[in-house]
Amino acid sequence: MTQARDTALVIFTPSGKRGQVAIGTPVLTAARQLGVDLDSVCGGRGICSKCQVSPGFGDFPKHGLTVTETALSAFNAVEQRYDDKRGLKPGRRLGCQATIEGDVVIDVPPESQVHKQVVRKAAALRDIRMDPATRLYYTQVREPDMHEPTGDLQRLQEALTRDWQIDAINASPRILARLQTALRKGDWSVTVALWQDHNGGPPEVIDIWPGLYEGRLYGLAIDLGSTTIAAHLCDLRNGEVKASGGVMNPQIRFGEDLMSRVSYAMMNRGGDAKMTEVVHDALTALATDLADEAQIAPAQIVEAVIVCNPVMHHLLLGIDPVELGQAPFALATSDAVHARADEFGLTSINPLAQAYLLPCIAGHVGADCAAVALSEEPYKSDDLVLICDVGTNAEILLGTKDRVLACSSPTGPAFEGAQISSGQRAAPGAIERVEINPETKEPRFRVIGSDLWSDEDGFDAATAVSGITGICGSGIIEAVAELRIAGLMDPSGLIGSPEATGTARSVPDGRTYAFVLHDGTGDGGPLITVTQGDIRAIQLAKSALFAGARLLMDELGTDTVDRVVLAGAFGAHISPKHAMVLGMIPDCALSNVTSAGNAAGTGARIALCDISARARIEAEVRNIQKVETAIEPRFQEHFIAANAIPHATAPFPELSKVVTLPDVSFNPGGAGGGGRRRRRRG
Amino acid sequence: MTQARDTALVIFTPSGKRGQVAIGTPVLTAARQLGVDLDSVCGGRGICSKCQVSPGFGDFPKHGLTVTETALSAFNAVEQRYDDKRGLKPGRRLGCQATIEGDVVIDVPPESQVHKQVVRKAAALRDIRMDPATRLYYTQVREPDMHEPTGDLQRLQEALTRDWQIDAINASPRILARLQTALRKGDWSVTVALWQDHNGGPPEVIDIWPGLYEGRLYGLAIDLGSTTIAAHLCDLRNGEVKASGGVMNPQIRFGEDLMSRVSYAMMNRGGDAKMTEVVHDALTALATDLADEAQIAPAQIVEAVIVCNPVMHHLLLGIDPVELGQAPFALATSDAVHARADEFGLTSINPLAQAYLLPCIAGHVGADCAAVALSEEPYKSDDLVLICDVGTNAEILLGTKDRVLACSSPTGPAFEGAQISSGQRAAPGAIERVEINPETKEPRFRVIGSDLWSDEDGFDAATAVSGITGICGSGIIEAVAELRIAGLMDPSGLIGSPEATGTARSVPDGRTYAFVLHDGTGDGGPLITVTQGDIRAIQLAKSALFAGARLLMDELGTDTVDRVVLAGAFGAHISPKHAMVLGMIPDCALSNVTSAGNAAGTGARIALCDISARARIEAEVRNIQKVETAIEPRFQEHFIAANAIPHATAPFPELSKVVTLPDVSFNPGGAGGGGRRRRRRG
Repeated sequence: MTQARDTALVIFTPSGKRGQVAIGTPVLTAARQLGVDLDSVCGGRGICSKCQVSPGFGDFPKHGLTVTETALSAFNAVEQRYDDKRGLKPGRRLGCQATIEGDVVIDVPPESQVHKQVVRKAAALRDIRMDPATRLYYTQVREPDMHEPTGDLQRLQEALTRDWQIDAINASPRILARLQTALRKGDWSVTVALWQDHNGGPPEVIDIWPGLYEGRLYGLAIDLGSTTIAAHLCDLRNGEVKASGGVMNPQIRFGEDLMSRVSYAMMNRGGDAKMTEVVHDALTALATDLADEAQIAPAQIVEAVIVCNPVMHHLLLGIDPVELGQAPFALATSDAVHARADEFGLTSINPLAQAYLLPCIAGHVGADCAAVALSEEPYKSDDLVLICDVGTNAEILLGTKDRVLACSSPTGPAFEGAQISSGQRAAPGAIERVEINPETKEPRFRVIGSDLWSDEDGFDAATAVSGITGICGSGIIEAVAELRIAGLMDPSGLIGSPEATGTARSVPDGRTYAFVLHDGTGDGGPLITVTQGDIRAIQLAKSALFAGARLLMDELGTDTVDRVVLAGAFGAHISPKHAMVLGMIPDCALSNVTSAGNAAGTGARIALCDISARARIEAEVRNIQKVETAIEPRFQEHFIAANAIPHATAPFPELSKVVTLPDVSFNPGGAGGGGRRRRRRG
Repeated sequence: MTQARDTALVIFTPSGKRGQVAIGTPVLTAARQLGVDLDSVCGGRGICSKCQVSPGFGDFPKHGLTVTETALSAFNAVEQRYDDKRGLKPGRRLGCQATIEGDVVIDVPPESQVHKQVVRKAAALRDIRMDPATRLYYTQVREPDMHEPTGDLQRLQEALTRDWQIDAINASPRILARLQTALRKGDWSVTVALWQDHNGGPPEVIDIWPGLYEGRLYGLAIDLGSTTIAAHLCDLRNGEVKASGGVMNPQIRFGEDLMSRVSYAMMNRGGDAKMTEVVHDALTALATDLADEAQIAPAQIVEAVIVCNPVMHHLLLGIDPVELGQAPFALATSDAVHARADEFGLTSINPLAQAYLLPCIAGHVGADCAAVALSEEPYKSDDLVLICDVGTNAEILLGTKDRVLACSSPTGPAFEGAQISSGQRAAPGAIERVEINPETKEPRFRVIGSDLWSDEDGFDAATAVSGITGICGSGIIEAVAELRIAGLMDPSGLIGSPEATGTARSVPDGRTYAFVLHDGTGDGGPLITVTQGDIRAIQLAKSALFAGARLLMDELGTDTVDRVVLAGAFGAHISPKHAMVLGMIPDCALSNVTSAGNAAGTGARIALCDISARARIEAEVRNIQKVETAIEPRFQEHFIAANAIPHATAPFPELSKVVTLPDVSFNPGGAGGGGRRRRRRG
């Protein structure tokens, strides 16, 4: 301890990285030498304070070390000034100022880590690594010299090379127009926001400020759906979501579903351009709203990542989607697209902001499915996972770390409450949960906006404002499944007569019967029934979803899957038991059926926060094998065979552990028994 | 000859490249194998006819060969179809169809050479190598396959790799929007125009056409001067100038010279933006006019190369030029700038056209000087060459292949006829050549628009329409020099009295004398005189030019130069003898004083036609040593010392071989003799 030494041992926590460094080395330099993730924007000039560390003193028996107070240099004037001006937490030091004078243990607090892990707020506890494409760099630029007349940009470049090892940058005329003022106003120091091309091109200057810019940079993760456009505004420093919002996709007035929009483009000259324009306007307005909500300047939004299905993808880029409406469903481009955000219609954010659109998997399987893959990582799964992103179209991924398959299946909008007699979107007043007592055949339900069941005290008061207005997607699925569990509906989907079922809630409805879930007519409210037509719509939708999954299972040569992940905002609300009673998904232990929430949106956030995720998903997408349902004869076969509830072709041993389905038949001809297997040709 | 052989000798002319190739090899393939420059747009499919060759038959004693008609395969159906449809010149074959069957000599005609040399039309007989950045590529793209759903862009990329070894392309959303239609309309064959980044980035798709596009691509070479904007519209296939035009720079209304425009920007908020806008509008209008004149579609203009001085450079890019108006004259950027042409305000040409702005040398020595260097190549010169680009500012280059120096000198507008009592721009009616008989002291002159001297028969008739309206830049230079040669003016620039000179053409003008060159007052025309003020203006201008050159000579430690090149539109009209009498340029053998015409414009054309020239001048500019005249005390010394005609400080032995200058003095005090050397402090 008294002997003069040349080097000292430094141990960084939490990384555990350690090594000998020369006595007198600043902590920041030592961190860099040892590959420790310690942030710095000012490049070690003691002004940004991003490199704060917490040295540990005392005994560290685990490391066999006793650290004395003299292991670091004394608090210096730069640190004192910073502490006086801004305040340093007790025990904190500036890593660029404190030098190593003896063996020491140094903790890097989370906010000083560049690539910190941020725990996702959503249900799935996966982490997002922070490594955004756009970051701030502070540097001091040499003043101009008449005798060596290089441009200001060239001297900025030189400074970035010196301080940050950035060898080449691109600066558009827009940046050049502001460069000279920024340099002089900042007394030859500036902060630049550089966007890094993950394909290796030179970084692009997105913005520039005089001196040290102390503001934050933000990015948008946008899930551009056919029906709604949802976006998260994320802090690019820590991934935090500062504001979230959604608007209806204004293209709806040109067609409710994708194919009607493709038709609109085919039938109306300039129709595609019109649809492009309205979606650009909506994105621009949404970005402005989110910036307002987060109380930031729109110019602080320097990046956007967008996920969407192929038709939205083409319309966003101004490409006529007509080829996607007919075989062979050729995409204009399947690779990821990056361009200046204003080329994607985002004109209200930083004028030089960059936008990134994830790659498409196939003509029917878009960047949204790629984002689901990025979020759920089937290509890393040890067990066989089936991922269904349920919406108007279902995108389905099946596989393990060895092989992943993907397809799309046209489920139609029934799962979203559309094309259902009492259907409505998920909103207060909508029935979202249903139970039918198998003995009394009496239903009870819950509506969005209240946690009470309809037979519980206080339900009427709790729903007085919203009323009971209809039934949403998860509600209709539960209602149909409960009808089956309660023996009110047979496997073919027929509702029994009042006589056959023994309940007056079965009421004639044309030549078939409907089940009265709620009769509000006495109070001037609606009569909410499940009609035979509703059941047919759900049967079509669930058959399509199952047939797609089954097609991928055929391709892999398997009859079972280990796990099922339901993705999509709607997927979050589906009850696994009811999904399995319906036969929406293959048989699987119910505990292995989970919801990933809006996995596409999560994938967009991951690609926004972590540049390495972009290269990763681009590579993974190339390995995903696409199966085209539209031309596959077996898809039709599976579709028809999956019509029964649950379908006739697949065994459901796991389901029988949860619920016993009564063997009833309400077909006037007596056909269509519970366990009967239909024979198909081929 | 009868023995079966595996290979044959092929000799290509004019390159002389030769080698053995396998029997049956198509001529185009053989050319590529042997590195012979043989064009092809369709990649060897027999449809573009760009690979036409002329095989030679008979004896070739030089090569020791006798070539028989069977050395090439017989005229085939593809060639016959092409000949029927379009016509092939006699003896021509399509290189992609004719195969090599025996030893053969094959001539590649100029129009089939990609990198053909084009002789410049201007005086200097330098060649321009044709290797434009933007070229056409025809290819056939694999049809989409549902089972392997790659995008159309990815299959186009694959075809370009296969046919043209182009591994990566960038396609903007604009191109993606047209890609699918082009591919289907062209039955899966397309032609793309690709712009090659000379810094090695991936080529950018500029345009796309279904099938084989048989149109041409054009580029603009623009010389953006403070006073006039001149542009050539060039065919990018052969460099031919299809249309040329010029317009006044509309910024003139914000200030006649550069510094008044910088002042305007400083004094008026938004003044720089206004000047940027008007020059963008002017460029756009000029481009449209040239396309009209050449009868081409503006979208066929896919590239622009722009040269200009630093103030114009900044205003073009939308950068406030204020820093260029004060020491240290810092440029926002000194490197070459390339961006989409619409960022340079060129909005009337192809929307994806690229523009390239040559690098600047220093804050006062711009891209126009770099273009002069590219045209005149001082960095390749064996002897010491002085290049003066004479305009409102003079840009001066001095050097050899070992070292090149550059500076700018503020000559002012006198050399262009401005600030001269009877001065005018070079236009019909302007006196452009002057002679004064040393015996009779009588002048004669020529005016623009006529080849006759004023004392020749028919002169009056020839100038009846234009009249004799004033004196232009070259006219005033000759007039002042002739006054000196005729003994009417002394070395200090004083005009003698009628008594001292013995001619009534010397007339009192205030306290000094003026010389009457032409008295048109009898016919209602002007009285054209050379006043003492005119001579002072020319003295200031020529002193500035000489002082700049002299400063560079000091830097190189030389008192003489081997060659002088006068560049600039005006430089083309200066008589070397008179320039030397004035002392505009250092002493030099008159036969070694040449004019390069508009060398800046030529440099722009070279950079437009030959992509390799861009990298070359960017590298050369970095090696050019800049000398800043504004802060160099010796510049002031040289400037003052160069005031006499010719100046007092330099010996003119070469000049004395051409003309004897009378030793006169008209100073009332008797000072200012011919050979007297002024002493200066320092």
